[in-house]
Amino acid sequence: MQAKQINGILNGTRNVLEGHLSLNVEPGNPTLEVNPVLSGQVSVIVGMTGKIKVDLILGMSQETTKMIIGRMFGGMEISEIDDMGWSAFSEFGNWVGAGCCTELSNLGFDVNITPPIINEGQSRFRSANQFISIPFQLDSHEIMIHISTQD
Amino acid sequence: MQAKQINGILNGTRNVLEGHLSLNVEPGNPTLEVNPVLSGQVSVIVGMTGKIKVDLILGMSQETTKMIIGRMFGGMEISEIDDMGWSAFSEFGNWVGAGCCTELSNLGFDVNITPPIINEGQSRFRSANQFISIPFQLDSHEIMIHISTQD
Repeated sequence: MQAKQINGILNGTRNVLEGHLSLNVEPGNPTLEVNPVLSGQVSVIVGMTGKIKVDLILGMSQETTKMIIGRMFGGMEISEIDDMGWSAFSEFGNWVGAGCCTELSNLGFDVNITPPIINEGQSRFRSANQFISIPFQLDSHEIMIHISTQD
Repeated sequence: MQAKQINGILNGTRNVLEGHLSLNVEPGNPTLEVNPVLSGQVSVIVGMTGKIKVDLILGMSQETTKMIIGRMFGGMEISEIDDMGWSAFSEFGNWVGAGCCTELSNLGFDVNITPPIINEGQSRFRSANQFISIPFQLDSHEIMIHISTQD
Protein backbone atom coordinates (compact mmCIF):
# COMPACT_ATOMS: atom_id res chain seq x y z
CA MET A 1 0.00 0.00 0.00
CA GLN A 2 1.76 3.10 -1.26
CA ALA A 3 1.35 6.57 0.18
CA LYS A 4 0.71 8.08 -3.24
CA GLN A 5 -2.21 5.74 -3.88
CA ILE A 6 -3.72 6.63 -0.51
CA ASN A 7 -3.21 10.32 -1.23
CA GLY A 8 -4.81 9.93 -4.64
CA ILE A 9 -7.90 8.42 -3.03
CA LEU A 10 -8.02 11.07 -0.31
CA ASN A 11 -7.66 13.84 -2.90
CA GLY A 12 -10.35 12.30 -5.09
CA THR A 13 -12.75 12.18 -2.13
CA ARG A 14 -11.83 15.66 -0.97
CA ASN A 15 -12.33 17.11 -4.47
CA VAL A 16 -15.94 15.90 -4.42
CA LEU A 17 -16.66 17.23 -0.93
CA GLU A 18 -15.07 20.60 -1.67
CA GLY A 19 -15.76 20.97 -5.39
CA HIS A 20 -19.25 19.45 -5.70
CA LEU A 21 -20.66 20.06 -2.22
CA SER A 22 -18.77 23.24 -1.21
CA LEU A 23 -17.72 21.72 2.11
CA ASN A 24 -14.67 22.70 4.10
CA VAL A 25 -12.49 19.61 4.58
CA GLU A 26 -10.00 19.34 7.44
CA PRO A 27 -8.24 15.95 7.29
CA GLY A 28 -7.24 14.47 10.66
CA ASN A 29 -4.53 12.01 11.63
CA PRO A 30 -4.52 8.63 9.89
CA THR A 31 -4.77 5.41 11.87
CA LEU A 32 -2.90 2.49 10.34
CA GLU A 33 -3.62 -1.22 10.27
CA VAL A 34 -7.20 -1.04 11.44
CA ASN A 35 -9.26 -4.23 11.09
CA PRO A 36 -12.18 -4.37 11.65
CA VAL A 37 -13.44 -0.81 11.16
CA LEU A 38 -16.73 0.50 12.54
CA SER A 39 -19.31 1.31 9.89
CA GLY A 40 -20.87 4.36 11.49
CA GLN A 41 -24.65 4.79 11.19
CA VAL A 42 -24.45 5.04 7.42
CA SER A 43 -21.61 4.10 5.12
CA VAL A 44 -21.03 3.86 1.43
CA ILE A 45 -18.70 1.24 -0.04
CA VAL A 46 -17.00 1.67 -3.39
CA GLY A 47 -14.72 -1.02 -4.81
CA MET A 48 -12.07 -0.41 -7.45
CA THR A 49 -10.32 -2.90 -9.70
CA GLY A 50 -7.53 -2.41 -12.21
CA LYS A 51 -3.83 -1.74 -11.70
CA ILE A 52 -4.58 -1.75 -8.00
CA LYS A 53 -7.56 -3.10 -6.08
CA VAL A 54 -9.16 -0.83 -3.53
CA ASP A 55 -12.01 -0.98 -1.05
CA LEU A 56 -13.08 2.51 -0.05
CA ILE A 57 -15.60 3.00 2.75
CA LEU A 58 -16.98 6.35 3.89
CA GLY A 59 -18.62 6.07 7.30
CA MET A 60 -20.73 8.78 8.92
CA SER A 61 -23.75 9.61 11.07
CA GLN A 62 -27.35 9.84 9.84
CA GLU A 63 -27.13 13.62 10.33
CA THR A 64 -24.05 13.90 8.10
CA THR A 65 -25.75 11.72 5.48
CA LYS A 66 -28.76 14.06 5.50
CA MET A 67 -26.48 17.07 5.21
CA ILE A 68 -24.76 15.59 2.14
CA ILE A 69 -28.08 14.64 0.48
CA GLY A 70 -29.44 18.11 1.28
CA ARG A 71 -26.47 19.75 -0.42
CA MET A 72 -26.92 17.50 -3.47
CA PHE A 73 -30.53 18.75 -3.62
CA GLY A 74 -29.26 22.33 -3.69
CA GLY A 75 -29.32 23.13 0.03
CA MET A 76 -32.52 21.44 1.18
CA GLU A 77 -33.17 20.54 4.80
CA ILE A 78 -33.64 16.75 4.89
CA SER A 79 -35.63 15.40 7.85
CA GLU A 80 -36.13 11.82 6.63
CA ILE A 81 -34.14 9.96 4.00
CA ASP A 82 -36.59 8.57 1.44
CA ASP A 83 -35.87 6.49 -1.68
CA MET A 84 -34.91 9.58 -3.66
CA GLY A 85 -32.53 10.57 -0.89
CA TRP A 86 -30.87 7.14 -0.83
CA SER A 87 -30.59 7.25 -4.60
CA ALA A 88 -28.85 10.63 -4.36
CA PHE A 89 -26.53 9.26 -1.67
CA SER A 90 -25.65 6.35 -3.95
CA GLU A 91 -24.84 8.93 -6.63
CA PHE A 92 -22.59 10.66 -4.08
CA GLY A 93 -20.73 7.32 -3.84
CA ASN A 94 -20.39 7.33 -7.63
CA TRP A 95 -19.01 10.86 -7.57
CA VAL A 96 -16.41 9.89 -4.99
CA GLY A 97 -15.49 6.77 -6.97
CA ALA A 98 -15.16 8.80 -10.17
CA GLY A 99 -13.09 11.44 -8.34
CA CYS A 100 -10.74 8.71 -7.11
CA CYS A 101 -10.54 7.19 -10.62
CA THR A 102 -9.37 10.53 -11.99
CA GLU A 103 -6.73 11.04 -9.30
CA LEU A 104 -5.46 7.44 -9.50
CA SER A 105 -5.38 7.58 -13.29
CA ASN A 106 -3.24 10.73 -13.08
CA LEU A 107 -0.83 8.70 -10.93
CA GLY A 108 -0.72 5.90 -13.51
CA PHE A 109 -3.17 3.56 -11.78
CA ASP A 110 -6.19 3.08 -14.02
CA VAL A 111 -9.14 1.62 -12.11
CA ASN A 112 -12.82 0.88 -12.65
CA ILE A 113 -15.38 1.27 -9.88
CA THR A 114 -18.19 -0.98 -8.70
CA PRO A 115 -21.72 0.37 -8.15
CA PRO A 116 -21.73 1.83 -4.61
CA ILE A 117 -23.32 -0.19 -1.81
CA ILE A 118 -24.89 1.76 1.04
CA ASN A 119 -24.79 0.16 4.48
CA GLU A 120 -27.35 1.43 6.98
CA GLY A 121 -26.92 0.38 10.59
CA GLN A 122 -23.99 -0.06 12.94
CA SER A 123 -21.78 -2.96 11.90
CA ARG A 124 -18.12 -3.84 11.50
CA PHE A 125 -16.20 -4.23 8.25
CA ARG A 126 -13.24 -6.54 7.77
CA SER A 127 -10.93 -7.01 4.85
CA ALA A 128 -8.05 -9.41 4.11
CA ASN A 129 -5.95 -6.25 3.75
CA GLN A 130 -5.68 -3.88 6.70
CA PHE A 131 -7.42 -0.52 6.51
CA ILE A 132 -5.95 2.91 6.86
CA SER A 133 -8.52 5.25 8.39
CA ILE A 134 -8.55 9.04 8.14
CA PRO A 135 -11.19 11.36 9.64
CA PHE A 136 -12.35 14.25 7.46
CA GLN A 137 -13.73 17.06 9.61
CA LEU A 138 -16.41 19.08 7.76
CA ASP A 139 -17.21 21.96 10.11
CA SER A 140 -19.60 20.31 12.60
CA HIS A 141 -19.72 17.02 10.66
CA GLU A 142 -17.25 14.18 10.29
CA ILE A 143 -16.68 11.46 7.72
CA MET A 144 -14.37 8.51 8.41
CA ILE A 145 -12.50 7.42 5.30
CA HIS A 146 -11.39 3.78 5.38
CA ILE A 147 -9.08 2.58 2.62
CA SER A 148 -7.84 -0.93 1.99
CA THR A 149 -5.65 -1.53 -1.05
CA GLN A 150 -4.12 -4.56 -2.70
CA ASP A 151 -1.41 -4.36 -5.36
CA MET B 1 -30.10 -7.35 -15.72
CA GLN B 2 -30.13 -10.47 -17.83
CA ALA B 3 -31.13 -13.90 -16.60
CA LYS B 4 -27.96 -15.47 -17.97
CA GLN B 5 -25.74 -13.10 -15.97
CA ILE B 6 -27.69 -13.91 -12.81
CA ASN B 7 -27.44 -17.62 -13.56
CA GLY B 8 -23.70 -17.30 -14.17
CA ILE B 9 -23.27 -15.71 -10.74
CA LEU B 10 -25.48 -18.30 -9.06
CA ASN B 11 -23.58 -21.12 -10.77
CA GLY B 12 -20.22 -19.61 -9.81
CA THR B 13 -21.32 -19.40 -6.17
CA ARG B 14 -22.84 -22.86 -6.21
CA ASN B 15 -19.68 -24.39 -7.73
CA VAL B 16 -17.65 -23.12 -4.76
CA LEU B 17 -20.14 -24.37 -2.17
CA GLU B 18 -20.47 -27.77 -3.82
CA GLY B 19 -17.01 -28.24 -5.34
CA HIS B 20 -14.77 -26.67 -2.67
CA LEU B 21 -16.85 -27.19 0.46
CA SER B 22 -18.79 -30.36 -0.45
CA LEU B 23 -22.09 -28.78 0.52
CA ASN B 24 -25.48 -29.76 -0.82
CA VAL B 25 -27.07 -26.68 -2.43
CA GLU B 26 -30.84 -26.39 -2.85
CA PRO B 27 -31.66 -23.01 -4.47
CA GLY B 28 -34.98 -21.47 -3.40
CA ASN B 29 -37.30 -19.03 -5.13
CA PRO B 30 -35.82 -15.69 -6.20
CA THR B 31 -37.27 -12.41 -4.94
CA LEU B 32 -37.04 -9.56 -7.43
CA GLU B 33 -36.52 -5.84 -6.94
CA VAL B 34 -35.45 -5.96 -3.33
CA ASN B 35 -33.97 -2.75 -1.91
CA PRO B 36 -32.77 -2.58 0.81
CA VAL B 37 -31.70 -6.12 1.64
CA LEU B 38 -30.97 -7.37 5.16
CA SER B 39 -27.34 -8.20 5.81
CA GLY B 40 -27.81 -11.20 8.06
CA GLN B 41 -25.43 -11.59 11.01
CA VAL B 42 -22.43 -11.92 8.70
CA SER B 43 -22.14 -11.06 5.05
CA VAL B 44 -19.42 -10.91 2.47
CA ILE B 45 -19.52 -8.37 -0.32
CA VAL B 46 -17.72 -8.88 -3.63
CA GLY B 47 -17.80 -6.25 -6.35
CA MET B 48 -17.15 -6.94 -10.03
CA THR B 49 -16.25 -4.52 -12.81
CA GLY B 50 -15.78 -5.10 -16.51
CA LYS B 51 -18.29 -5.80 -19.26
CA ILE B 52 -20.94 -5.70 -16.55
CA LYS B 53 -20.80 -4.27 -13.02
CA VAL B 54 -22.02 -6.47 -10.22
CA ASP B 55 -22.44 -6.24 -6.46
CA LEU B 56 -22.71 -9.70 -4.94
CA ILE B 57 -23.60 -10.09 -1.26
CA LEU B 58 -23.78 -13.40 0.59
CA GLY B 59 -25.65 -13.02 3.88
CA MET B 60 -25.84 -15.67 6.59
CA SER B 61 -25.91 -16.42 10.32
CA GLN B 62 -22.83 -16.63 12.58
CA GLU B 63 -23.41 -20.40 12.75
CA THR B 64 -23.33 -20.78 8.97
CA THR B 65 -20.18 -18.63 8.83
CA LYS B 66 -18.52 -20.94 11.37
CA MET B 67 -19.61 -24.00 9.39
CA ILE B 68 -18.04 -22.58 6.20
CA ILE B 69 -14.78 -21.64 7.98
CA GLY B 70 -14.70 -25.08 9.64
CA ARG B 71 -15.01 -26.77 6.24
CA MET B 72 -12.20 -24.59 4.86
CA PHE B 73 -10.07 -25.81 7.77
CA GLY B 74 -10.76 -29.41 6.78
CA GLY B 75 -13.81 -30.13 8.93
CA MET B 76 -12.91 -28.39 12.20
CA GLU B 77 -15.54 -27.40 14.75
CA ILE B 78 -15.30 -23.59 15.11
CA SER B 79 -16.58 -22.17 18.41
CA GLU B 80 -15.24 -18.59 18.05
CA ILE B 81 -14.18 -16.81 14.86
CA ASP B 82 -10.66 -15.45 15.41
CA ASP B 83 -8.47 -13.45 13.00
CA MET B 84 -7.42 -16.59 11.14
CA GLY B 85 -11.07 -17.56 10.78
CA TRP B 86 -12.03 -14.15 9.38
CA SER B 87 -9.09 -14.33 7.01
CA ALA B 88 -10.32 -17.71 5.79
CA PHE B 89 -13.82 -16.32 5.36
CA SER B 90 -12.42 -13.48 3.28
CA GLU B 91 -10.70 -16.11 1.15
CA PHE B 92 -14.09 -17.80 0.78
CA GLY B 93 -15.29 -14.48 -0.69
CA ASN B 94 -12.37 -14.59 -3.11
CA TRP B 95 -13.26 -18.14 -4.14
CA VAL B 96 -16.84 -17.13 -4.83
CA GLY B 97 -15.68 -14.07 -6.78
CA ALA B 98 -13.27 -16.17 -8.83
CA GLY B 99 -15.97 -18.78 -9.42
CA CYS B 100 -18.30 -16.07 -10.74
CA CYS B 101 -15.50 -14.63 -12.92
CA THR B 102 -15.08 -18.00 -14.59
CA GLU B 103 -18.80 -18.48 -15.22
CA LEU B 104 -19.32 -14.90 -16.45
CA SER B 105 -16.24 -15.13 -18.67
CA ASN B 106 -17.67 -18.31 -20.25
CA LEU B 107 -20.77 -16.24 -21.06
CA GLY B 108 -18.68 -13.50 -22.67
CA PHE B 109 -18.68 -11.10 -19.71
CA ASP B 110 -15.12 -10.63 -18.52
CA VAL B 111 -14.99 -9.11 -15.04
CA ASN B 112 -12.46 -8.33 -12.32
CA ILE B 113 -13.30 -8.64 -8.64
CA THR B 114 -12.64 -6.33 -5.71
CA PRO B 115 -11.10 -7.63 -2.46
CA PRO B 116 -14.03 -9.01 -0.41
CA ILE B 117 -15.43 -6.92 2.44
CA ILE B 118 -16.90 -8.78 5.39
CA ASN B 119 -19.77 -7.11 7.22
CA GLU B 120 -20.39 -8.29 10.77
CA GLY B 121 -23.59 -7.16 12.45
CA GLN B 122 -27.18 -6.71 11.35
CA SER B 123 -27.55 -3.86 8.89
CA ARG B 124 -29.30 -3.03 5.63
CA PHE B 125 -27.70 -2.74 2.19
CA ARG B 126 -28.97 -0.48 -0.56
CA SER B 127 -27.85 -0.08 -4.14
CA ALA B 128 -28.85 2.26 -6.97
CA ASN B 129 -29.77 -0.93 -8.83
CA GLN B 130 -32.38 -3.25 -7.32
CA PHE B 131 -31.27 -6.58 -5.94
CA ILE B 132 -32.44 -10.01 -6.87
CA SER B 133 -32.28 -12.30 -3.83
CA ILE B 134 -32.10 -16.09 -3.87
CA PRO B 135 -31.87 -18.34 -0.80
CA PHE B 136 -29.45 -21.27 -1.02
CA GLN B 137 -30.47 -24.01 1.40
CA LEU B 138 -27.46 -26.05 2.60
CA ASP B 139 -28.99 -28.86 4.65
CA SER B 140 -29.64 -27.13 8.01
CA HIS B 141 -27.94 -23.88 6.92
CA GLU B 142 -29.02 -21.08 4.61
CA ILE B 143 -27.18 -18.41 2.63
CA MET B 144 -29.03 -15.49 1.07
CA ILE B 145 -27.52 -14.49 -2.27
CA HIS B 146 -28.17 -10.85 -3.22
CA ILE B 147 -27.18 -9.74 -6.72
CA SER B 148 -27.32 -6.27 -8.16
CA THR B 149 -26.05 -5.74 -11.70
CA GLN B 150 -25.55 -2.76 -13.96
CA ASP B 151 -24.91 -3.07 -17.72
